Amino acid sequence: MAEKRPFDILNSALNNTVVVGLKGGRELRGTMVSYDVHMNIVLEKAEHLENGEVKRGLGTVLVRGDSVVYISPS
Amino acid sequence: MAEKRPFDILNSALNNTVVVGLKGGRELRGTMVSYDVHMNIVLEKAEHLENGEVKRGLGTVLVRGDSVVYISPS
Amino acid sequence: MAEKRPFDILNSALNNTVVVGLKGGRELRGTMVSYDVHMNIVLEKAEHLENGEVKRGLGTVLVRGDSVVYISPS
Amino acid sequence: MAEKRPFDILNSALNNTVVVGLKGGRELRGTMVSYDVHMNIVLEKAEHLENGEVKRGLGTVLVRGDSVVYISPS
Amino acid sequence: MAEKRPFDILNSALNNTVVVGLKGGRELRGTMVSYDVHMNIVLEKAEHLENGEVKRGLGTVLVRGDSVVYISPS
Amino acid sequence: MAEKRPFDILNSALNNTVVVGLKGGRELRGTMVSYDVHMNIVLEKAEHLENGEVKRGLGTVLVRGDSVVYISPS
Amino acid sequence: MAEKRPFDILNSALNNTVVVGLKGGRELRGTMVSYDVHMNIVLEKAEHLENGEVKRGLGTVLVRGDSVVYISPS
Repeated sequence: MAEKRPFDILNSALNNTVVVGLKGGRELRGTMVSYDVHMNIVLEKAEHLENGEVKRGLGTVLVRGDSVVYISPS
Repeated sequence: MAEKRPFDILNSALNNTVVVGLKGGRELRGTMVSYDVHMNIVLEKAEHLENGEVKRGLGTVLVRGDSVVYISPS
Repeated sequence: MAEKRPFDILNSALNNTVVVGLKGGRELRGTMVSYDVHMNIVLEKAEHLENGEVKRGLGTVLVRGDSVVYISPS
Repeated sequence: MAEKRPFDILNSALNNTVVVGLKGGRELRGTMVSYDVHMNIVLEKAEHLENGEVKRGLGTVLVRGDSVVYISPS
Repeated sequence: MAEKRPFDILNSALNNTVVVGLKGGRELRGTMVSYDVHMNIVLEKAEHLENGEVKRGLGTVLVRGDSVVYISPS
Repeated sequence: MAEKRPFDILNSALNNTVVVGLKGGRELRGTMVSYDVHMNIVLEKAEHLENGEVKRGLGTVLVRGDSVVYISPS
Repeated sequence: MAEKRPFDILNSALNNTVVVGLKGGRELRGTMVSYDVHMNIVLEKAEHLENGEVKRGLGTVLVRGDSVVYISPS
């Protein structure tokens, strides 16, 4: 098993901007203020992205972990 | 693990308006009056949204947690 | 955790008309005569709805819980 | 919890005709001769339906429970 | 619970031709030479069917149980 | 339960060419060099197939078991 | 069971370039710097691919294991 573990990057991304890819192809971008072992995460100042462009604001949002495809700190 | 936990925002959103994104792309908006650890939630005065516009009223609705993609307090 | 729990509305909806949203977008409407912890439910006098209009009668129907997106008492 | 339980209607539908709705929208109709707690069921004289019309015969068929959306006794 | 159980028909179909419906709508036909409790099955002389017509041969094939929608002995 | 078990064909297919059908309809072909109880498998000299024709080379590839629909030794 | 195990190739691919196929057909390419038993992986210098061509950069990305279809070291 690798010494660095995948969840380590969530911890270091706390309070920073992340892009979250969802099942079905949608993307959200916002400031990640919490997460848990299921990859449930809370974003603040979240926005829907479409092809990388902002489409619509969402504000604070709890994203259910099993809908997450990827999380990318910026 | 983060000190703030994702479910904390559900508790603070109780009895307030939330937008719930569902698998398949549908959105509901309503007053969240209860939830549980599976993210099963009950909305009152719920409405179907389409592109952020109200499409149809639903009244009270129990949403099954595993259909939830995100929950956004307003 | 909320004091009112999501399943409470199922109990109070027993023997009343509910609309059930299914994965894939279909909706059923009927009288809910039983349910269990998996959200398996039985509707009597059930009908398929399409855009809120009755499309076809089904009679009595057992709906598998993991196909349920939402249940809305009327 | 309701006193009548959802699976009760499976027991009373044994050896009778049922319509089974499957994930993806297909429907089968046939005589239900057995079932188990996972909603695996066996139909005899089964037929594929399309919009409620018979499309093709299947004979005896074991339907995997996790593909079932609903079961409707006729 | 029914006295005949759904898996009984798998046992009696061993070494006989079956049609297997898969998630997504594909069908395979072949001689079922083994199966297990997860509905993993092995077909020999298997063929892809399309609308009930043979489309392409596959030879021996292990089908993963959770992709199975139905199994129909012929 | 059948005496031959489905996984037996994986063992006898080790180091031979197999075609792997994936959820969503894609197919891979390659030399299967390892597998485990979850049907995670490793193919070497793997290629994407489309309608049975080679579309693109992949080299070595680990395929996640829960994406596998079928595995067919050639 | 095979003596070489599927996860062995993840260990030998650490700090090397991999292509990751995701459910829904998307592909990512990047340097794999960590993984765990759920196939959660972290890629650095990650890029979205479309038909094997680079479409958009992502930087560092945590990919949720249950969205992974395959991982191919290059």
